[in-house]
Amino acid sequence: MPRITIDQIEALCERDLPFAKTLGITVDDIGRGTAVVRLPYKSDLLRPGGTISGPAIMGLADFAVYVTVLSLIGPVELAVTTSLTSNFLRRPGPADLVAHARILKLGKRLAYGDVEIFSEAEEGEGPVAHVTATYSIPPQG
Amino acid sequence: MPRITIDQIEALCERDLPFAKTLGITVDDIGRGTAVVRLPYKSDLLRPGGTISGPAIMGLADFAVYVTVLSLIGPVELAVTTSLTSNFLRRPGPADLVAHARILKLGKRLAYGDVEIFSEAEEGEGPVAHVTATYSIPPQG
Amino acid sequence: MPRITIDQIEALCERDLPFAKTLGITVDDIGRGTAVVRLPYKSDLLRPGGTISGPAIMGLADFAVYVTVLSLIGPVELAVTTSLTSNFLRRPGPADLVAHARILKLGKRLAYGDVEIFSEAEEGEGPVAHVTATYSIPPQG
Amino acid sequence: MPRITIDQIEALCERDLPFAKTLGITVDDIGRGTAVVRLPYKSDLLRPGGTISGPAIMGLADFAVYVTVLSLIGPVELAVTTSLTSNFLRRPGPADLVAHARILKLGKRLAYGDVEIFSEAEEGEGPVAHVTATYSIPPQG
Repeated sequence: MPRITIDQIEALCERDLPFAKTLGITVDDIGRGTAVVRLPYKSDLLRPGGTISGPAIMGLADFAVYVTVLSLIGPVELAVTTSLTSNFLRRPGPADLVAHARILKLGKRLAYGDVEIFSEAEEGEGPVAHVTATYSIPPQG
Repeated sequence: MPRITIDQIEALCERDLPFAKTLGITVDDIGRGTAVVRLPYKSDLLRPGGTISGPAIMGLADFAVYVTVLSLIGPVELAVTTSLTSNFLRRPGPADLVAHARILKLGKRLAYGDVEIFSEAEEGEGPVAHVTATYSIPPQG
Repeated sequence: MPRITIDQIEALCERDLPFAKTLGITVDDIGRGTAVVRLPYKSDLLRPGGTISGPAIMGLADFAVYVTVLSLIGPVELAVTTSLTSNFLRRPGPADLVAHARILKLGKRLAYGDVEIFSEAEEGEGPVAHVTATYSIPPQG
Repeated sequence: MPRITIDQIEALCERDLPFAKTLGITVDDIGRGTAVVRLPYKSDLLRPGGTISGPAIMGLADFAVYVTVLSLIGPVELAVTTSLTSNFLRRPGPADLVAHARILKLGKRLAYGDVEIFSEAEEGEGPVAHVTATYSIPPQG
């Protein structure tokens, strides 16, 4: 069982994560060390060329890894990103983006995971972006 | 002389970069292959712990490299990020962030640069984040 | 069918890749867009702490992505790495390392893939390292 | 004053870093939080295309950051790389490579720095590679 629920994440967004709330990110699924997170399409996510902007994609990925870390350690809000590497592979058109995240290593201090992001407009295609991230986990009391 | 002006960048933001516009990013200075870009503090940039959220910092860095690329190639809006790596070094408190970007390599197809981001609240301290990014430059007609 | 064989890769190593040859890297398997590559253990791969050194792991990963790119485009020796990001997750003890590489995006100019590296000494454990890499593909005549 | 000398680093290479020793890496200069490290050219560093191979460049960069970390914390051999990102910007011809490393953040547990690598054959050109790295610092007794 994951150590955090979709309801808990949504309450956390509402209360403390204005960035995710502004983007309108939702959680489709949480497993133990995995999560599926969605960025619903809206036109103000676009950049020149009619594709979804890099920062929106990075915000989605960062949030997806955050949820995935919390699925393993519980609602430790103060887990923070220490590094995040995004590779933009295809230009996503105007459609929802869906991020599939997993944790590859959970240590006492650091967690590391990756995220594949797909566009709902391009089913059967490969990911539009691939992101890796390291989170720092605060000491638990 | 840079090949784009602050006025041109601001018009571009207004018209085509809703993400930068929403964040309220402004340009302090543009050189040839360098730029200084500012993220004015506002409370909805915060995340748990009272620090500015990672996605806002990544959005600032991405925009700073974009401006820096355009300072060398002119107003080629369709230049796009192909990869961006962020390292978060210190947790920035509630204050403006200032990004100093430079291009380390401008090729025909790809440009690569890095960005040091400082908090105005922590003068004399090192950067709060260090970001590297590669941009893809579309073929010019 | 992959567009390059293990025999072709081994001839290429022998002739033109002294680095891989010195490390003693071998190819276990090549698919279409995938490869399994091995770094046989020897004591001069160690660094302080008795673990296999980072550069040896990065050399293995770089080679694994190279083979995987060639599995899709054929024996284009001049494909070169443009970026490579390594995350070291567990300290591998004295044993063979096995790298599983796949390509996530093959474009005309760039290919992007990732690699999970496992230690044969730690079966059932997660990867000791996760690596992502972008290769530049030269224009074909 | 740096907390480690060139003589100490060279003794460490000789004794415990076979990888750096095999590459023939030497230290030109150590400051406090900075280092200049050299990879002397030899033909078995080349890869197809007549340029110095990526793994040799990554090995040089990793070593340069290691020296730079030790310049701040003293001879803590068990400092280990947790991540390293290399961007290859120009193809270095057959000549010595010189790496200039600096630390951007030294924390209790993690140190982060970057490295610019220049070819002695291409004076006046920009760097052939830019590398960022995070090191983990073991707790001191």
